[in-house]
Amino acid sequence: MPTDSPHIIALLSGPDQKGIVSKVASWILEHEGNIIHADQHRDPEEVVFFQRVEWAVEGPRSAEEETDAFRAFGDSIGMKTQVAIAGQKPKVALMVSKGDHCFHELILRWKAGDLPCEIALIISNHETLRSAAEGYGVPFEYISVTKETKSEAEAQQLSLLNQHGIELVIMARYMQVLSPIFLNTFGKPVINIHHSFLPAFAGAKPYHQAHKKGVKLIGATAHYATADLDQGPIIHQGVAQISHRHSVQDLIRKGRDLEKITLAHAVSWHLENRILVYENKTVVFD
Amino acid sequence: MPTDSPHIIALLSGPDQKGIVSKVASWILEHEGNIIHADQHRDPEEVVFFQRVEWAVEGPRSAEEETDAFRAFGDSIGMKTQVAIAGQKPKVALMVSKGDHCFHELILRWKAGDLPCEIALIISNHETLRSAAEGYGVPFEYISVTKETKSEAEAQQLSLLNQHGIELVIMARYMQVLSPIFLNTFGKPVINIHHSFLPAFAGAKPYHQAHKKGVKLIGATAHYATADLDQGPIIHQGVAQISHRHSVQDLIRKGRDLEKITLAHAVSWHLENRILVYENKTVVFD
Amino acid sequence: MPTDSPHIIALLSGPDQKGIVSKVASWILEHEGNIIHADQHRDPEEVVFFQRVEWAVEGPRSAEEETDAFRAFGDSIGMKTQVAIAGQKPKVALMVSKGDHCFHELILRWKAGDLPCEIALIISNHETLRSAAEGYGVPFEYISVTKETKSEAEAQQLSLLNQHGIELVIMARYMQVLSPIFLNTFGKPVINIHHSFLPAFAGAKPYHQAHKKGVKLIGATAHYATADLDQGPIIHQGVAQISHRHSVQDLIRKGRDLEKITLAHAVSWHLENRILVYENKTVVFD
Amino acid sequence: MPTDSPHIIALLSGPDQKGIVSKVASWILEHEGNIIHADQHRDPEEVVFFQRVEWAVEGPRSAEEETDAFRAFGDSIGMKTQVAIAGQKPKVALMVSKGDHCFHELILRWKAGDLPCEIALIISNHETLRSAAEGYGVPFEYISVTKETKSEAEAQQLSLLNQHGIELVIMARYMQVLSPIFLNTFGKPVINIHHSFLPAFAGAKPYHQAHKKGVKLIGATAHYATADLDQGPIIHQGVAQISHRHSVQDLIRKGRDLEKITLAHAVSWHLENRILVYENKTVVFD
Repeated sequence: MPTDSPHIIALLSGPDQKGIVSKVASWILEHEGNIIHADQHRDPEEVVFFQRVEWAVEGPRSAEEETDAFRAFGDSIGMKTQVAIAGQKPKVALMVSKGDHCFHELILRWKAGDLPCEIALIISNHETLRSAAEGYGVPFEYISVTKETKSEAEAQQLSLLNQHGIELVIMARYMQVLSPIFLNTFGKPVINIHHSFLPAFAGAKPYHQAHKKGVKLIGATAHYATADLDQGPIIHQGVAQISHRHSVQDLIRKGRDLEKITLAHAVSWHLENRILVYENKTVVFD
Repeated sequence: MPTDSPHIIALLSGPDQKGIVSKVASWILEHEGNIIHADQHRDPEEVVFFQRVEWAVEGPRSAEEETDAFRAFGDSIGMKTQVAIAGQKPKVALMVSKGDHCFHELILRWKAGDLPCEIALIISNHETLRSAAEGYGVPFEYISVTKETKSEAEAQQLSLLNQHGIELVIMARYMQVLSPIFLNTFGKPVINIHHSFLPAFAGAKPYHQAHKKGVKLIGATAHYATADLDQGPIIHQGVAQISHRHSVQDLIRKGRDLEKITLAHAVSWHLENRILVYENKTVVFD
Repeated sequence: MPTDSPHIIALLSGPDQKGIVSKVASWILEHEGNIIHADQHRDPEEVVFFQRVEWAVEGPRSAEEETDAFRAFGDSIGMKTQVAIAGQKPKVALMVSKGDHCFHELILRWKAGDLPCEIALIISNHETLRSAAEGYGVPFEYISVTKETKSEAEAQQLSLLNQHGIELVIMARYMQVLSPIFLNTFGKPVINIHHSFLPAFAGAKPYHQAHKKGVKLIGATAHYATADLDQGPIIHQGVAQISHRHSVQDLIRKGRDLEKITLAHAVSWHLENRILVYENKTVVFD
Repeated sequence: MPTDSPHIIALLSGPDQKGIVSKVASWILEHEGNIIHADQHRDPEEVVFFQRVEWAVEGPRSAEEETDAFRAFGDSIGMKTQVAIAGQKPKVALMVSKGDHCFHELILRWKAGDLPCEIALIISNHETLRSAAEGYGVPFEYISVTKETKSEAEAQQLSLLNQHGIELVIMARYMQVLSPIFLNTFGKPVINIHHSFLPAFAGAKPYHQAHKKGVKLIGATAHYATADLDQGPIIHQGVAQISHRHSVQDLIRKGRDLEKITLAHAVSWHLENRILVYENKTVVFD
């Protein structure tokens, strides 16, 4: 089999039904595709079926044509689908404030070829990271945000995201809440990193809270942003052990390491089309 | 230096003062002791000094005499002390209900010589573990607990603890809350294992909550029991990664592994005189 | 769909071929089966296909009939198969010496309902664990092993395994090497726990070696036993951080915790038909 | 007590002797110092004493004077000492080749204020990272290394290290072996990151070896470089779980994450004067 055939990755979900695995596999075979990976999951309580399937397109039709055909097939069997051609690189925007650890981590991984995307835009409510962004050759847009100007600022942000054809926003320690209106209007995924285990310590200054409480573990949570602040579907959580020897400063430093690594993994899985969302939870096909 | 000298382990805490390390070390030297380990910590915010020091008694006086003398010395310099002779094995009681994973783990470690104590008594509100306990040769006392009989039951429990000279109680998945009156009357440490990260998911059915929320990590917390339920000083926390593939049953199973290992470590540190409590937090000299 | 249908779990492996996923899924559908889980993997270098598929038997034929039919189907498409009916509990023998941490861990998990098997026999070259085994109600057979009597002893062991219909042997810290002849004659899986990361520190006294070398991590490796000592396919590896504070005794103690948990996980995956072996490696469908 | 007093950090090691803790603490008290942290360790097999002690200089003499005085005191009691004034930032050189993950990680942590040093020089045997280095404002020196020119190249490197007053060299994935002559002539610490658990997989292409062997864990080891290649004292080891799903590429990627984090921690402990070396092992006072 030719190794240079394009690959399609499809995510399916919907009410479980008899023969669903067979239907999908037969469709791919009829279209002369060759399945490379397939992973199914079934939520026995919700009786929902999930599948991630990746196949090599080896028939006469193009990957684009097959993609459209598979979407139509998904509709015909009552399944929601997300279908992507492997190697196509969606445009991504980072939203940042002053903290730079997640910003550098994501850009350096992207430059190293580890994140299949194009980081096409950086939006910030501070000028702090402008020169670093420009050093990386990525457009940097400063949009001031105050309580009074918030809705106006969000309109500007949305306009920029639209102009650049952005398909994913990553809040890389962007210290502003995105409004439900913003999230609805954008209508595409937004990934956030929260400096704590969720659902614990959900409020402000989590490392100060953790230190005061004397916990022995700290965490970080990467999740999709939803209108209900910090309650969106959890993608990944990182954890580190701490002790009485650690000051609040040490916790913040360890927290930064957790945040950048946890966020980078979550973004990587999203870009590899490994994540399905349902019932405010995620299925991560790793 | 003789290797068979008795060792004393002292924990000190109190307001930091200049020269405190020197005073302690000089006292030990004057008493012909030889310091084997010493670990200091200073809470810079609270300006509190903590020390764990272990020394070999090599002078003419007995370990018991030196222990008393060190306590008096601690008082004279305004430090709270806990002083123990290494190898002396405090009597311990387990409180259990029906679940047996923590129960077996602790008894087997004790039998293997890993826990320097004597498990002298098991108290339960169920008969379930009687034959297992008796198989291990440990006295088992059944005391029924209902809402109506609780205070009477606790009085019986306290009487048993007193009769057996118990110096530490371990709640090894004992599914009843101990009242503030019980804890105050007992007046000695009680270690509990909580089936969750504290402070998250503090209520009932944590694994169901965790599953519903779609978290990617679960935890367990060993802590000293205090009047304020599940808010006592945290000793140790364990964590395990989970995914969408895990059912509630799987979480319960993984939770049991976390609980037993986390509790066993906490108990072991307590018995090795490694834990100091202050401000509802612990300093664990590991 | 009825929840009480029997489930079949099949593991397939063989040269990758176009349409293989479809063929398997179609066969199950034609037999009125309902796929509950399916997980495929493809080794791109070896071009080998692996699948674990679990389905509910909902047609008129019995699970036993379907099991045989699926094996024949596997042969017809050139795939090696292992097919089991979920809930059928294979008979397991533990081989032990004096150390008891793995022994208790496995038996207690089995008693708690966490290991789908029947622990039917314990074989030891020491009498040490007889009373513990009998306390658990499991037959205990002492067979002395010396250099001179080894082949005779192995013949006796094989005879016992045969009499009891044993389908899996677990070396739970059995301190003798099983000969290639034993392994070939038994012809069924043998799981071993090695007190180290393999391939490092493969020889004697690994914790002494680790301590001398000053490593900062220790490990344990569960693997299938093969004629080439300690070189069999690795199933699972556990790890723990250590420091200069830990004595050889501490490493041994931490090693015991790693060994018992790592072995228990490996055994559990084996019993849930999650492990495929090829090229001296394992595919673990977790 | 004034919070702005300079701090001195001293590491001591030598044959254990009675009263040593007391002598050190008394010396500091007599010099009007105030002990902030102190941690002792005793190797019971080698009967060697180790201490890290940090104190605030509150007497009339300068931190520099006290530093010299303490060194003399150490000599007088037969202890080897390393004494540093906290906040003094040693000059550090990175040696790099083409791989940039460790390079960026270290420089970004330094820029974020997390590494108390001055990265004063980058030496490489390739031009690849020149523009990145210059973008960070750090001098970059290209020195070609071939088999024929190696000794000449090392002479050039040594001359540069000398000119810049370098006190620590970090081999941040520098793909050349430093000769014993280089290490002896430089005479100051060199930290290396090895892309594997040591002592396993010590040779070439460790991730290919790991993949072929089917291991379930990979690691990285930060250690001091010594004449005996990759056998120097281990400072820190990181570990990550892997499965059959991971390709060699995935292992390399996960390995990079391990390498950069493991190296950064080791460097940070070195710079905080937390590491003592003896008998080719390290004592890390964390």
